[in-house]
Order: sequence, then structure tokens, then C-alpha cells
Amino acid sequence: MQIAALEKQLDFLREIDRLKTVVRQSPLLDKSRKENSAEHSWHLAMYALLLSEYASGPVNTDRVIQMLLLHDVVEIDVGDHPIHGGSSSALQLEQESRAAERLFGLLPRPQGDALLALWQEFERAETEDAKFAKALDRFQPLLVNIFTGGGTWTENNVSLEQVFSRYGPAIKRGAPLLWVACEQWVIQHFAGRV
Amino acid sequence: MQIAALEKQLDFLREIDRLKTVVRQSPLLDKSRKENSAEHSWHLAMYALLLSEYASGPVNTDRVIQMLLLHDVVEIDVGDHPIHGGSSSALQLEQESRAAERLFGLLPRPQGDALLALWQEFERAETEDAKFAKALDRFQPLLVNIFTGGGTWTENNVSLEQVFSRYGPAIKRGAPLLWVACEQWVIQHFAGRV
Repeated sequence: MQIAALEKQLDFLREIDRLKTVVRQSPLLDKSRKENSAEHSWHLAMYALLLSEYASGPVNTDRVIQMLLLHDVVEIDVGDHPIHGGSSSALQLEQESRAAERLFGLLPRPQGDALLALWQEFERAETEDAKFAKALDRFQPLLVNIFTGGGTWTENNVSLEQVFSRYGPAIKRGAPLLWVACEQWVIQHFAGRV
Repeated sequence: MQIAALEKQLDFLREIDRLKTVVRQSPLLDKSRKENSAEHSWHLAMYALLLSEYASGPVNTDRVIQMLLLHDVVEIDVGDHPIHGGSSSALQLEQESRAAERLFGLLPRPQGDALLALWQEFERAETEDAKFAKALDRFQPLLVNIFTGGGTWTENNVSLEQVFSRYGPAIKRGAPLLWVACEQWVIQHFAGRV
């Protein structure tokens, strides 16, 4: 056994425990508390496991699952940036890139490089796998808001038009059939509130 | 799009949100609170992604990840059964089987059957994939106790011999090289406490 390699792998696995303490804006469905980014990542991986038939193109479900498992680890260094908190700045993207290099740099060389490349692929959102992963990362919080009767939309006074513009493009691009369903739910939701 | 199929898939994804409220005995590494079973499942999937080189035989890492993502969903119905709470009863195993049938039965037919079979494979712990998944499910809580200076061992007044007998067989069987490392850490841990 390569003890040095194992020690690095355990350093990484120990460090990412902190993702369980990064709190998101979205609530749990029972509204008992806010969701954290580790359990959010688990839930998204389950979404990918079940819903790949709705991807816009041919996807490798297992790669999508891997991407979603690690897509948020950078939040350990830079925190969560909520969808309704304004658009991402160049500074934020730069900070996230540095966080990814630090975190995946804890791992032995070839393994860390491969995971960093997978994280970068997710961020660029150009491949079929990454587009589908990005779509699910928008789809799940949208559903949480539908299921909880408003969630972060109510808290942030978000309009139907803002929901369409903030969630629509990513979901439509990576999972167009899911967006067709979303449009109906969103319209019904806002009709009920008026 | 098969609307009926999507509705079933979303029913399942909505139901398993409850795994985020199932609290385990293990603490987070910062000791701020106990870990829940959803974030535990995420962490185990990351262990599988990184550590498959230590498996006792050839494993399909992606199948192991899938198993670990869903291995605990039965706790939504039956709760967590801690390792130091006594051995599993036939009644508990029967209840978990019924929970798996109910939960995966929420899904459209072929998909739900496939995931139920994967859960059953994990429980039987006979295939290489399942043996490795079971080993990680013991390895992660052992590490938590080492990293937090005692954790559930201190709380439950667990001896070195009990650690060896409760964690050893599963880890040794699915990841023998990891157990070699564990033995050293456990011996050092208990030496430090005396």
C-alpha cells in the first residue's frame, strides 16, 4: 500500500467534511431547517441516477453523478452563492477556481488532476454531461420551491419572470423536457399566489 | 415525455428528502452536531470515488457509488441502527426489506426493480462491489472516531477489542489494506487514552 497516497486521500476526505456545514438558502421539504451543500450534493446525485433519460443529449450517467458529488466542494473555501443574490462576478469565479486547485491539490497527483478537470468541465458547461449536471443543479431547487409553496422565491420576492430567466436557460439547455414540465408548475404556482 | 413516469420519479425524489432528517450517532468532524444519513451517503460516495484501489477484488467504482448513494434510504421508514446498539435482529432486517420495497416501489417499474436489486446486493454483501461498499460503510465512521478523538467509542464506552470485532471483519473483507492502516490507528488511539 502506498501510505503516502492514502494519507493524502484521507486529508482530502477529512477536509471535505466541512461541506456539511455550508448552509444553502433552500429549505428541506419539511421546512425544519435550511439544506446544507453536502446533502444537496447527495440529492442531486440521486436525481442524476434517476433522470438521465431527460437529458438533451447522450450522457454518461456515472460521470454526471461524479460531477454532482464534487461540484460544490469549492464552497468550503468561498461559501454558497445563492441564485437570487445577483449574478456571479469574475472575482467569485476566480476564487472558486483557486479553491478547486487547493482542494483537489490535496490528493495524489493523477487522481487530483482528474477530479479538478471534472470540476472544470462542470463549470464550463459545454459537454453533454456538464450541461445535464447544470440543469439538475437548477431543477432541484426549483422543485423545492414548488413543493414548499414558495421557498426562496417568497423570501426574496422573486417574480414569475425572474424564475423563468434565472432557472429556464440552464434547465432548457440540459434537460429541455424537464423545463416543459417546470413551466407549467411555475405558472400554476404564481397563479395560486395572485 | 412520459409524464406518468416523471411523476413517479419525482415522488421518489421528494420522499427521500426525509433522509436528511435521519440523525446518526457519528458527529461531524468539527463536533458541531451529529451527522445525518444523507450527508453520510454523500461522503461515502466520495470515499468510493477515491479509494477503489484498496478494494479486495476488482470493483466497478460507479456501481459502488450508486450502492452507497441509496444504501441508507430504508432508514426513512425504520431509522438508523447504530453499530454500538447491539446486533441486527431478524425483525429489523425484515422491516428494512419492506422499506426498500415501499420506497423503490414508488419508481416506474424497471427502474425501481433495478435499484431494489442493487440495494439487496449491498445488503447481502457477497459481490466484490458490495463487499467494498460495506467496508467503506464501516471505515468512514471508524475514521470519524479517530479524527474526533473518540466519538461514539467514548460515548458508548467501547473497548479496543470491541472496535476490532465490530469494524474489523467488514473492513478486512472488502478493503484489507485499509484495515492494516486502521489497526495501527486504533491501537494508537486506545494507547493514548490509557
